[in-house]
Amino acid sequence: MLTYDMILDAQKALRGIARRTPLESAPRLGANIYIKAENLQLTGAFKLRGAYNKIRSLSPEEAARGVIACSAGNHAQGIALSASKLGIRSVICMPAGAPISKVEATRGYGAEVVLVPGVYDDTAREAARLAGEHGYTFAHPFDDPYVIAGQGTIGLEIMEQLPDVEQVVCPIGGGGLISGVALAIKTLKPSCRIIGVQAEAAGSMAASRHAGHIVTVPDRDTIADGIHVLTPGKLTFQLCQQYVDRIVTVTEDEICAAILSLMENQKTVAEGAGAASVAACLFSKVDVSEKKTVCVVSGGNVDVTTLSRVITKGLVKSGRIAELTTRVPDRPGSLIGLLQIVSQTGANIVSIRHAREDAQSDVAVCTVSMVLETRDEAHVSRIRQALRDKGYPLLSP
Amino acid sequence: MLTYDMILDAQKALRGIARRTPLESAPRLGANIYIKAENLQLTGAFKLRGAYNKIRSLSPEEAARGVIACSAGNHAQGIALSASKLGIRSVICMPAGAPISKVEATRGYGAEVVLVPGVYDDTAREAARLAGEHGYTFAHPFDDPYVIAGQGTIGLEIMEQLPDVEQVVCPIGGGGLISGVALAIKTLKPSCRIIGVQAEAAGSMAASRHAGHIVTVPDRDTIADGIHVLTPGKLTFQLCQQYVDRIVTVTEDEICAAILSLMENQKTVAEGAGAASVAACLFSKVDVSEKKTVCVVSGGNVDVTTLSRVITKGLVKSGRIAELTTRVPDRPGSLIGLLQIVSQTGANIVSIRHAREDAQSDVAVCTVSMVLETRDEAHVSRIRQALRDKGYPLLSP
Repeated sequence: MLTYDMILDAQKALRGIARRTPLESAPRLGANIYIKAENLQLTGAFKLRGAYNKIRSLSPEEAARGVIACSAGNHAQGIALSASKLGIRSVICMPAGAPISKVEATRGYGAEVVLVPGVYDDTAREAARLAGEHGYTFAHPFDDPYVIAGQGTIGLEIMEQLPDVEQVVCPIGGGGLISGVALAIKTLKPSCRIIGVQAEAAGSMAASRHAGHIVTVPDRDTIADGIHVLTPGKLTFQLCQQYVDRIVTVTEDEICAAILSLMENQKTVAEGAGAASVAACLFSKVDVSEKKTVCVVSGGNVDVTTLSRVITKGLVKSGRIAELTTRVPDRPGSLIGLLQIVSQTGANIVSIRHAREDAQSDVAVCTVSMVLETRDEAHVSRIRQALRDKGYPLLSP
Repeated sequence: MLTYDMILDAQKALRGIARRTPLESAPRLGANIYIKAENLQLTGAFKLRGAYNKIRSLSPEEAARGVIACSAGNHAQGIALSASKLGIRSVICMPAGAPISKVEATRGYGAEVVLVPGVYDDTAREAARLAGEHGYTFAHPFDDPYVIAGQGTIGLEIMEQLPDVEQVVCPIGGGGLISGVALAIKTLKPSCRIIGVQAEAAGSMAASRHAGHIVTVPDRDTIADGIHVLTPGKLTFQLCQQYVDRIVTVTEDEICAAILSLMENQKTVAEGAGAASVAACLFSKVDVSEKKTVCVVSGGNVDVTTLSRVITKGLVKSGRIAELTTRVPDRPGSLIGLLQIVSQTGANIVSIRHAREDAQSDVAVCTVSMVLETRDEAHVSRIRQALRDKGYPLLSP
């Protein structure tokens, strides 16, 4: 079982180990919005707190044998760094297809990495087998009272940093983070609302809450890999039922827009899971008009190539980049006519592809695809209209 | 003239107006490296400090007439917000080609924006004309004692936040920022070294120092638009001569790599000028092996499209993305042979372009361009060698 005292204990244990991350106002996201920046935590995510609190609670015998975990993400790094700090052996099972950068980071923090062919379930099975064989303690990523107590220290910090907080919005994967945060905050200030956010594509806690019991949701892709959990924990489900006021979901597009907004307006880098809480506020899933609201930005470990894709997607969604494809007659000068129309609308050309593809189009016609820098969606509409007015058909790219 | 007392005065005046920005250790950039995060300043850059300190120093008569400035960047937003806070009219002359986002941001802070056709010099001339006609006070972006005193408050904060600092690295455009910071720090701790950093493409203060008098450098493009100044100020040149120990320059590639490293390792978004100080440390222009070093990250106002380009460039430079072009015979199955070799090297395919371009190649041959996700430069070399060994020619993309 989890108690408030365990969270206080964890806070003492984490002194000098985990960073007390900043809590900052975010006026450009919303007048009442504050960010608890766990993306600035060591290892780039809150997971360090729970992992360290778990490992430091091992008995001397358990510590001597070491810990094992399976994760391709933030839990792996949290366990690896915590074990190293405590002088304990750690073994992390990762799917063989895990990004090289994550494997290297985990090794860099001092863990032994075992790459397991197959999917997550194979990795978990191999971890269980190795634990049995060598007597390692298995460190669950969320369904463990010590892990939850560690994450709960974020709740204590929020109450210290912004005592008049009225609402806390927190991402949910397995539920470890929100369970700890909610218990801490509801103990200190029962009137403060706790809202959980899940990716629509992995809404397992939301679905379980709706059903009234734990359910498993189908596996779908999400950019928020940090909260990609298909079945909530037993303990975390129970704690969420008890302490969390409401659970909402956000779409992939909303998460991408939130990542972009955090970069542009807060100058900070959040991963998909981390930005989910902000997405819920930006897209009115949570009412922030009257309540002083803290969004927990849980982590910042996002691949920069992913970031680059998110930027492009976000720019397209907000009408600041538009891709248009049309046809022009296959004769000298016809591209100029098209470009003059585009230029008159005030759009900048990013790239142009002009091709004569005999197999796909009429013989006397060329396809032109343009990527344009635009002002907003209204601007894009005006450009589309101008092209149509002059007889240029708009094709799907 | 500028005095230390003026900086103390500015600090009092800025209380509640400018943020006291965080100073954070950056262990993943280097053991001795700390970041003074002026990218988290209101308006996204340090300029607010100097702008506010200038405007609050106007006489009642001057204040009644208003201020004018010319800038397409951070100075514009600093002046606009400061004037609004003080209830003073502000007019900003911007080049007509300035990005819409910057124009909107400046208007959003309450300024009247005058778009002037032509280059920067035309904008400056128009600002001078309007100042004469309407009696506006012209707010210089850097060569003004009140502006410099405002920027100097960053030096006071550094000394409060990290008293045992031994070295401060600071970007230089016109020299306003470093002049104030250097005077403040050298007054409090003469042993602390002050290093200035310029973009190689706009090394006007470095060249002036070398010549022993103010010189103008030729106009070249740089990603660090915030420090794109071709002629240093008179006052700032004199202060740099007196208080700055050394000036170094960094290349465009080094600045891009620093922006990327700040995103990946510090989870923070810096503009080119802001990342220049970090670039100097990462690329050994400044010795950080023994001295506790603060890098002033001066701003974070970078277009996300620019950021996207920087990411791609940085990934290519560090060997994490490679673009390879080769030829395969134009017959069924030949692409498979090529892909098997790539797959055996452990590279991930990002995109492939396979084309039969009769005009450019032999009739029986197709060109294949691949973008691959790779581990590092050594990995890219291995892939190139493997392709060559199997008889695939490597073409320039």
